[in-house]
Amino acid sequence: MNRSNDERADRSITRGVPGSDFLQLDIGEAPFGGRAAWLAERLRRAISEGRLPVGGRLPATRVLAAELDVSRGVVTEAYRRLSEDGHVTGRGRNGTVVVAAPVRPAPSPAPPRQASRGDLFTTEPGDDLLDLIRSAPARIDLSPGVPDLAAFPRAAWLRAEREALAGLSASGLGYGDPRGVPELRRAVAHWLARNRGIGAEPDEVIVVAGTAQALALVGQVLRADGVEEIAVEDPGSLGVRQQLGRQGLRTPPVPVDTEGVRVRELGGYGAVLLTPAHQFPTGVVLGGARRRALMDWAAAGGLIVEDDYDAEHRYDRPPVSALRSMLPERVYYAGSVSKLLAPALRTGWLLAPARHQDALVAAKRFADLGNAVLPQLVLARLMESGELERHLRLVRRRHRLRRDAMIAALRERIPGAVVHGAAAGLHLLITFPEPAGGAVRGDGATGFTDTGLAAACLARGVKVHPLSWHRQRPGPPGLLLGYAASPATAIAEGVAVIADALLDRPS
Amino acid sequence: MNRSNDERADRSITRGVPGSDFLQLDIGEAPFGGRAAWLAERLRRAISEGRLPVGGRLPATRVLAAELDVSRGVVTEAYRRLSEDGHVTGRGRNGTVVVAAPVRPAPSPAPPRQASRGDLFTTEPGDDLLDLIRSAPARIDLSPGVPDLAAFPRAAWLRAEREALAGLSASGLGYGDPRGVPELRRAVAHWLARNRGIGAEPDEVIVVAGTAQALALVGQVLRADGVEEIAVEDPGSLGVRQQLGRQGLRTPPVPVDTEGVRVRELGGYGAVLLTPAHQFPTGVVLGGARRRALMDWAAAGGLIVEDDYDAEHRYDRPPVSALRSMLPERVYYAGSVSKLLAPALRTGWLLAPARHQDALVAAKRFADLGNAVLPQLVLARLMESGELERHLRLVRRRHRLRRDAMIAALRERIPGAVVHGAAAGLHLLITFPEPAGGAVRGDGATGFTDTGLAAACLARGVKVHPLSWHRQRPGPPGLLLGYAASPATAIAEGVAVIADALLDRPS
Repeated sequence: MNRSNDERADRSITRGVPGSDFLQLDIGEAPFGGRAAWLAERLRRAISEGRLPVGGRLPATRVLAAELDVSRGVVTEAYRRLSEDGHVTGRGRNGTVVVAAPVRPAPSPAPPRQASRGDLFTTEPGDDLLDLIRSAPARIDLSPGVPDLAAFPRAAWLRAEREALAGLSASGLGYGDPRGVPELRRAVAHWLARNRGIGAEPDEVIVVAGTAQALALVGQVLRADGVEEIAVEDPGSLGVRQQLGRQGLRTPPVPVDTEGVRVRELGGYGAVLLTPAHQFPTGVVLGGARRRALMDWAAAGGLIVEDDYDAEHRYDRPPVSALRSMLPERVYYAGSVSKLLAPALRTGWLLAPARHQDALVAAKRFADLGNAVLPQLVLARLMESGELERHLRLVRRRHRLRRDAMIAALRERIPGAVVHGAAAGLHLLITFPEPAGGAVRGDGATGFTDTGLAAACLARGVKVHPLSWHRQRPGPPGLLLGYAASPATAIAEGVAVIADALLDRPS
Repeated sequence: MNRSNDERADRSITRGVPGSDFLQLDIGEAPFGGRAAWLAERLRRAISEGRLPVGGRLPATRVLAAELDVSRGVVTEAYRRLSEDGHVTGRGRNGTVVVAAPVRPAPSPAPPRQASRGDLFTTEPGDDLLDLIRSAPARIDLSPGVPDLAAFPRAAWLRAEREALAGLSASGLGYGDPRGVPELRRAVAHWLARNRGIGAEPDEVIVVAGTAQALALVGQVLRADGVEEIAVEDPGSLGVRQQLGRQGLRTPPVPVDTEGVRVRELGGYGAVLLTPAHQFPTGVVLGGARRRALMDWAAAGGLIVEDDYDAEHRYDRPPVSALRSMLPERVYYAGSVSKLLAPALRTGWLLAPARHQDALVAAKRFADLGNAVLPQLVLARLMESGELERHLRLVRRRHRLRRDAMIAALRERIPGAVVHGAAAGLHLLITFPEPAGGAVRGDGATGFTDTGLAAACLARGVKVHPLSWHRQRPGPPGLLLGYAASPATAIAEGVAVIADALLDRPS
């Protein structure tokens, strides 16, 4: 059935419709057994590129089959597919006509805003600020909030996953309880009893995709309940503030001092979000008197959202028990494995006051129908076997050594800085006293801002958070320095770079 | 330092404060190295249970230490903890005084509404209806929307997980891109090109926690953009309607006939959610003429949300290409692995019109900061290695046999039923013609409702969905019968039970 090129060209011209030459079709490219699909795809492309314009006719099936040296069924099937998906119509006297071209693919969306390093620190923090700082390249990353990820128990995880897969029934792979699998809810209840002094039934535990989702769900439920604002600690987490703001909640600041949040200043508010075990970012543990005052405030009607983000990382003594343990009816409690294992697991848990439980479960259902099952089963095994506590003991030792290395480096290189929050957690806060001190030049009129300092550090390859990102009201400049994820040598080098940036800054 | 019981009792009485007998303390229960923690916990419990009332004094440290036969430091440390977490105060002349008791734990929240079987089918469907039917026990589960879960490729999954863990850098376990890991976004782009005729860049793909989350995010973005209603197919998925309703969107019905949604009736609406490849629940494939009319409607300003929920499960021929491939600027596209692998994976993908991309990424960021990383890497490997397509070929064969078994059983046992949607998918729809037919008694005044029929089936141990759950406007009664997850014997038995229930129903 091979025909010469001349014959083909001639035929196309005489029939007034394009032939396969015009379409640049080479049947040799078609995969075995997939000729009709291949031909349909090529024709779609030709329509999309305007080579087969809307209103134009396709070659008769007989003709195209002959030109391509394929059976006519291949062409008929390809045309059928084009007809079925709406590109062409008709098979009568007038042949098959192109009736719809796909709109030209728009240019791909702009890649996510790659702020220049200057932008990142000089413009008002946008919703994507924390994404941008995370993805900014740096030689040494001293961002706060990340544990020693190199220590992630990969072998134990894989072992637990094998067991979980082996033990899982087929129906366990279907749609499930939006609150999470019973195994993990039980393991979390046990964990909270052992480590956080909380007595909770497995049925009360809602497994969530990390604290970010916990706050989104709580925010939704509170908004639906008429709550319009939730006070937050100041300084306090920018990410938390953004998260609550996204749910339409205002986040008025309440000052934090050396005893934690100033409970007296909560008077006018109906709800507050707190990090009582280890205040972010100052590291203060809420004092006993303040806890009592807070309990009185809550018992009188105040609602508390307890973000228990890294309570387990206390170095000097066991952590204080959670507020939730004192007043379960007034406290939403959120915890996660982001600081225990890895943020990439996106797994956490939420306890709600009993009267809000149903609304919370509904919020989780409509968020995503519940967390993925396999990682829940794996985590449940790690928690119930004691593996997670073993891991925590291991990393706590490593974290403490790194913290000590950072404190030593700071004393040596930046003696004028005040170090806060060393007793627990994964980061230090350093602040720079006001000008009077002399060791470090002042801020304000002299132009020394912590954002400028952080920008100078990043320009030198060291990533840190400026304290002012995590502030609503003005205060002395400072930096958040994560130590848990970096070896001691990197910490020493990072601190040296910060010291250089401090000396070089424009006066 | 052992003292007799008499001495202890005497001491407690003379000092007017409770001793360890009263507290029922037995130091033998304390774990080695954890005596202070144990003691603090016991004292908290005693406070919580009222055995140590607010205002009461704790025994002097010296006294309690002697009674328990422990060093005084153990008691001092326990008291310090109680002080730190706000249970007690003072150490002066008046001793240590209980100042705050935890509020008694409220009774656990009621377990999730366990509707009696009658309730489930007779009351107005609530937000938790699909949870309730899912958790209702049944001998044979013919719920729609679930693939053959017994075929889940456990060995391949575990192998891919091992490789993913081995190849993952420490920083890969930190916080990541809210759109998902690049590996999976690339794999999805390739999958969509191969299987759905969609040309998308990996940067356009947003990995989400299943279609439920995709709809929640799209709903949020549309609401924020001023959209107040989104038309839906009728019959159409109840779950989808609930999901959009949760975002504050009205969901007016547009009728579906044998060519799919009646595009002409879309006139007054600005947005529509469609299942064009295999309409849920009727199984109709949107006809070519309708596709063209829909493209015209969209090009004139209409917005389409394409829920491509089971396009890959076509038995007679390759699936039609996605609407997204024709008009990327007007189509949100949502797909997932729920029907390809398992719903429990809670993983899907979303493509947005370019101008909505940033808003969608922000919505995903504030939903949960992005999907968990490990399962994404595993899935990317299964998709890029061809494992997923192999799996799909395997289950497609099994599903087709099960479909055939169901059709045969229906022909034999319920010949009066009309079978819809056999060409593709994981379920059949059967409807019962109006009384004129005679083979099946009519509905309405005679009391034959599909909810009543489904209730009768469940009472006999067979779980099915009544069509009316997935309807907004009235229509003939029907049942949705999932076949993919059940072996042929169970299918035959299930259909026999439905036939019995039909015969027995009150006339």
